[in-house]
Amino acid sequence: MNKKPSILIVGAGAIGSFYGAILKKAGCSVSAVLRSDYNAVRAQGIRITSPLGDLSYEPDHVYRDGDLPEETPDFLILCVKVLPGVDRVALVAPWMGEKTRLVLIENGLDIEKELADAYPQNPLISCLAFIAASRTESGVVEHKAYGKLVMGRYPEGIDEGCRALSQLFIEGGIKSDLTERVVSERWRKCLWNTPFNPLSVVANGADTLTMLDTTGGEELVRAMMREVIEVAAAEGYPMDEALIDQNIDNTRKMPAYKNSMALDYLNDRPIEREAVLGNVVALAKRHSVAVPHLNTVLVTLKMRAALEGRE
Amino acid sequence: MNKKPSILIVGAGAIGSFYGAILKKAGCSVSAVLRSDYNAVRAQGIRITSPLGDLSYEPDHVYRDGDLPEETPDFLILCVKVLPGVDRVALVAPWMGEKTRLVLIENGLDIEKELADAYPQNPLISCLAFIAASRTESGVVEHKAYGKLVMGRYPEGIDEGCRALSQLFIEGGIKSDLTERVVSERWRKCLWNTPFNPLSVVANGADTLTMLDTTGGEELVRAMMREVIEVAAAEGYPMDEALIDQNIDNTRKMPAYKNSMALDYLNDRPIEREAVLGNVVALAKRHSVAVPHLNTVLVTLKMRAALEGRE
Repeated sequence: MNKKPSILIVGAGAIGSFYGAILKKAGCSVSAVLRSDYNAVRAQGIRITSPLGDLSYEPDHVYRDGDLPEETPDFLILCVKVLPGVDRVALVAPWMGEKTRLVLIENGLDIEKELADAYPQNPLISCLAFIAASRTESGVVEHKAYGKLVMGRYPEGIDEGCRALSQLFIEGGIKSDLTERVVSERWRKCLWNTPFNPLSVVANGADTLTMLDTTGGEELVRAMMREVIEVAAAEGYPMDEALIDQNIDNTRKMPAYKNSMALDYLNDRPIEREAVLGNVVALAKRHSVAVPHLNTVLVTLKMRAALEGRE
Repeated sequence: MNKKPSILIVGAGAIGSFYGAILKKAGCSVSAVLRSDYNAVRAQGIRITSPLGDLSYEPDHVYRDGDLPEETPDFLILCVKVLPGVDRVALVAPWMGEKTRLVLIENGLDIEKELADAYPQNPLISCLAFIAASRTESGVVEHKAYGKLVMGRYPEGIDEGCRALSQLFIEGGIKSDLTERVVSERWRKCLWNTPFNPLSVVANGADTLTMLDTTGGEELVRAMMREVIEVAAAEGYPMDEALIDQNIDNTRKMPAYKNSMALDYLNDRPIEREAVLGNVVALAKRHSVAVPHLNTVLVTLKMRAALEGRE
């Protein structure tokens, strides 16, 4: 590609806004489809403070969810949360051109299939983001630290599109790694997220060290990690059990912190329960793998949602 | 015993006040040791509304926790909650005479041993109360329904003291059954309480039907019940698995309700976590019985307590 490709960010929250800024810095045209932040971004663009400097930018086009596209993008980057009420297939439908590559920068496991099935002709690039960023108000994002991406073609492999996109992110100033087995990388990330995130919510927003230092807490986290490893293995993504020690050790080395799901919970935002935990338990059932610890946490969260009339 | 025996209630909350009233009706002298409700009860006695009529009474003596006894009672009935911060052995110490029979009307499993070990010469009577009652303000109790007791000598058997006490409760107007195996009865009661009570707290105060009707909820409750049955069997108290169906069916036949631990939680009162759940998990460990569902709920509750600086 000689001309820099066109990018459309669907769901420009903290993550989408940040990665859009990086691609803008790399020289791409970057547009955004917004819902609640439409007016703010239309008026003042996207404001981003970052250790990388001021990353604020004006998107080339600002669309409102429901607008008809002026053109379809080379890369459609989907950054909405994976929630039961959000129909991602419908959300991207108006913007999917024949050659549009669909890029997911989203959390969770088994979140690609639905989109791959709906758009079998469009290459799907799955990305993992290692980043600390938050939206502080409409159109305003605080990038705190990190930002590295790991990406690959779904379900596996690396193609020209992956290479081009990864290179653009690097040109924009962040780290980006390619992987032949992106699903495997998702499992590695979820080895941490699937136990810690939902557990922090059931524990009313507990931080990492509170969870580990509670009597029986570290053992519970380890038991949940072992269950994740068993499900991953049944899915064809074996992981070394030594990763459990590594994850625990690394978590203990960091200061106590509240993970993103704990923060969502404490701020009354919806949590990505199914993407991070429910899908793992569903896969476990399909493979007849017993996951009593994961299931107890999942059902407890469902009971809470039922109590609040949310399901 | 020709003369009616003397009774001392230690911990005259809803349960202690109610059963004191019944024994008062049966003609016993009934005194009470109080802490926070001392002044109110001293001034106006104990007020109890009940479907059985007005059960209000003046205790023969009203003591404050820490007073020295004028005499030791024939039956010391201990009704305080079983909580880590409450030293029950010390609490009853000043009132234990050589011939005093110690009576527990308290919830939970494995709650007798500590007292039996401390007072090996005093017969210990363990009671289960099937009652709906609550303390609405200092010295004021609302008895809503039920009231039946099941009692026996701890660790097993029925002696003269049990018979006499049970007969007094019957004379006072409630049902009272004797059992040769009171610990076995505790397990049967905990088959319901151990899953439902703590689960309702983790689920933020969910009622019975919300818990059962959540997707996966009934299965989770059943899994926890199976674990309770396994621990009970290892302890020498086998239960029929058919009790699980019975418990679920009976719960479904009742209107949705919030159990006592859910209400304690919602009203910011301490919960009897260890008595109802922690002790079961501890026994499971001792017998190497795997209880992943029970343990997940237990550790989650501990994480919450740690988060709130309560342990």
